[in-house]
Amino acid sequence: MNNLLVAQSGGPTAAINATLVGVLQGVRASGKIDKVYGAKNGIEGAIKGNLIDLNDIVRDTKAMDTLTYTPSSALGTCRYKMKDWRKDDEPYKKIIETFYKHDIKYFIYIGGNDSMDTVDKLSEYCKLNGHDFIIMGAPKTIDNDLNLTDHSPGYGSAAKYIATTISELACDIGAYDIPAVTIVEIMGRNAGWLTASAALARLNGGPGADLIYLCEKDFDNARFISDVKEKLAVKPGILVAISEGIKDKDGNYVSDQVSSGAVDNFGHKYIAGAARVLENLVRNEIGCKVRSIELNLMQRCAAHIASETDIIESLMLGQKALSCALDGETGRMAAIKRLSDEPYRVEFISVPVNEVANHEKTVPLNWITPDGHDVTDEIIAYMKPLIQGETNVKFANGIPMQIKLY
Amino acid sequence: MNNLLVAQSGGPTAAINATLVGVLQGVRASGKIDKVYGAKNGIEGAIKGNLIDLNDIVRDTKAMDTLTYTPSSALGTCRYKMKDWRKDDEPYKKIIETFYKHDIKYFIYIGGNDSMDTVDKLSEYCKLNGHDFIIMGAPKTIDNDLNLTDHSPGYGSAAKYIATTISELACDIGAYDIPAVTIVEIMGRNAGWLTASAALARLNGGPGADLIYLCEKDFDNARFISDVKEKLAVKPGILVAISEGIKDKDGNYVSDQVSSGAVDNFGHKYIAGAARVLENLVRNEIGCKVRSIELNLMQRCAAHIASETDIIESLMLGQKALSCALDGETGRMAAIKRLSDEPYRVEFISVPVNEVANHEKTVPLNWITPDGHDVTDEIIAYMKPLIQGETNVKFANGIPMQIKLY
Repeated sequence: MNNLLVAQSGGPTAAINATLVGVLQGVRASGKIDKVYGAKNGIEGAIKGNLIDLNDIVRDTKAMDTLTYTPSSALGTCRYKMKDWRKDDEPYKKIIETFYKHDIKYFIYIGGNDSMDTVDKLSEYCKLNGHDFIIMGAPKTIDNDLNLTDHSPGYGSAAKYIATTISELACDIGAYDIPAVTIVEIMGRNAGWLTASAALARLNGGPGADLIYLCEKDFDNARFISDVKEKLAVKPGILVAISEGIKDKDGNYVSDQVSSGAVDNFGHKYIAGAARVLENLVRNEIGCKVRSIELNLMQRCAAHIASETDIIESLMLGQKALSCALDGETGRMAAIKRLSDEPYRVEFISVPVNEVANHEKTVPLNWITPDGHDVTDEIIAYMKPLIQGETNVKFANGIPMQIKLY
Repeated sequence: MNNLLVAQSGGPTAAINATLVGVLQGVRASGKIDKVYGAKNGIEGAIKGNLIDLNDIVRDTKAMDTLTYTPSSALGTCRYKMKDWRKDDEPYKKIIETFYKHDIKYFIYIGGNDSMDTVDKLSEYCKLNGHDFIIMGAPKTIDNDLNLTDHSPGYGSAAKYIATTISELACDIGAYDIPAVTIVEIMGRNAGWLTASAALARLNGGPGADLIYLCEKDFDNARFISDVKEKLAVKPGILVAISEGIKDKDGNYVSDQVSSGAVDNFGHKYIAGAARVLENLVRNEIGCKVRSIELNLMQRCAAHIASETDIIESLMLGQKALSCALDGETGRMAAIKRLSDEPYRVEFISVPVNEVANHEKTVPLNWITPDGHDVTDEIIAYMKPLIQGETNVKFANGIPMQIKLY
């Protein structure tokens, strides 16, 4: 029996189910897989033997279509870090047991950095211990910080959500004629790719974000206040985009500046984001109207405004991961190689997963403007193709249709 | 000369420009208006004589189409409360001066409660002081708290954004199998209409929000914790929707519970929303993973997910306000009368603005379930038609097209 197991891991995205569908489409097209199982909650499902039968859905085009546009991980997710098998091989043995029990020959793991670490360790374990299983990775992360792939599925949709939202917020803020600062906090602890997408809100000539601060560059409170004052001198409503992970020159998170002393009247320590810290800073230093906004989970699950380019590429990467697996590749990840920006052309390749795992691709410093509060044309040319196209998401009763697999 | 002045006021919505377009369409269709002006930043523009020429846009169908789907107030907005003219008639005199100077006979003011108060006072002033001007109101508010109209333009689009977002957040949260509570704070200080729309996320069978608390009902911390524990006993990821204006039985805002003592390490008093207060409460009382999300300005300006029903009605109300004005009606507001829920049928009427101004329509208590943490089928039947249909918003470069009028 040539059975296949697929699983999803890490933070949800608007495109990770499209990659799952890509795998299932590949299964159907190849005719080389007998049965398809999904592991519930990532590798944990493989360890516990907690599998879902996916054979019915492979034959149901309509369900696959709905699954493509359903956000988050339909198989469930986890944040499980595999230990070195030389120190603790228990989980490895259990996974192998699950594989043998269900005649699974192929395992495709869709996820980010930690998941690729799992693919790396598991494929190495299998090779060195004489187990003939194929372990392939398919990339996913809104953070876009995966190495060896031009960009990561999920990023384009999150970037489209952010660019759209920033353009709408700019309209909202622009209606008032009193000085006001709005600070939008965007996901990204160490990589500012998502925050940079705030610049895309200007593509049609609108104002978009007036100031953009990525976590790759040291953040300076005094400089920030001076930047804001300079912008306020020109127009009343200022929109600022910041990475959640902005840090000062000593490497301390701006968001940590508040958690030290503040308590509410239940006596609990206050946990606040960077935007909220800066909101208080503006209130104190400038004294104008100020508001902070966290785009929060919406930026990773707003499938209704997903990028069609991202969804198609996510599908293709699922198909690619499957075809590599059928070709006998193991310990590798399906990836995107960009051939040109305009016209936008890519090809799908596979890369060694051990060069992906535990690396983090951040925004090159020369893609941030020298003044530190904006991004360059190079990164705009890089990002722009990734948000193109609107998806064919179906609505029923006024809300997007979604599917549950269990 | 039969000139017309139009203005927008109050908080932006995704549909207020559609009402402006409705007025302009009415102007074009009637052929009875010579020139159309827009007042910048609401009634303040009329007071200061700060007008924009809108004649070109009346003839540009494409621009009108883009304006229809551009969020926020394209003419700018204000939060200006007119004083009683018997106490201070200065602003009234200035408005009248603007009217005479530009041969303005008709004034249409698009806005919420405060704007209708302006329409009321200004029309009364004109009548009693022998000025033959026509002053008409057109409704707008995401809060849906306007009296004498079945619902308000802008509400349906905000409700569609909320229902969609809650359905997507439910997918995100549902992917994890560890106990976690996510609390979503929705606009509404005194009226819970928007929060109630979180229930619409369940229309296609998805889980949507597990608990919904409107500001119309006293909020009890202990009861809330007990509700959450009860839900957590059944499934791991719980989604809670609350109105920003929830209050305890003594009428104190839940959001006030934090502002008394908390300061950050700049020494600033902390201003937090109700969801953040409850986040800390859950952390302390239950100890599970917990997160708070504010839908913030996005809920009022997310034009990319506007309701087609809302946009069409907003257009129609602009047309209705104009046709009433041309018929000589003054001191009145265009409004919606519902004829039936299913099939959904409405008619457009006009109502006396003095019965709209300074009233606030809240959610009837019998539309909240007796347990206080959900809404009834009656309000779902009321809300459901208002979020139907997706708009024809155009995209360019991957983001929605928008127009600026100045």
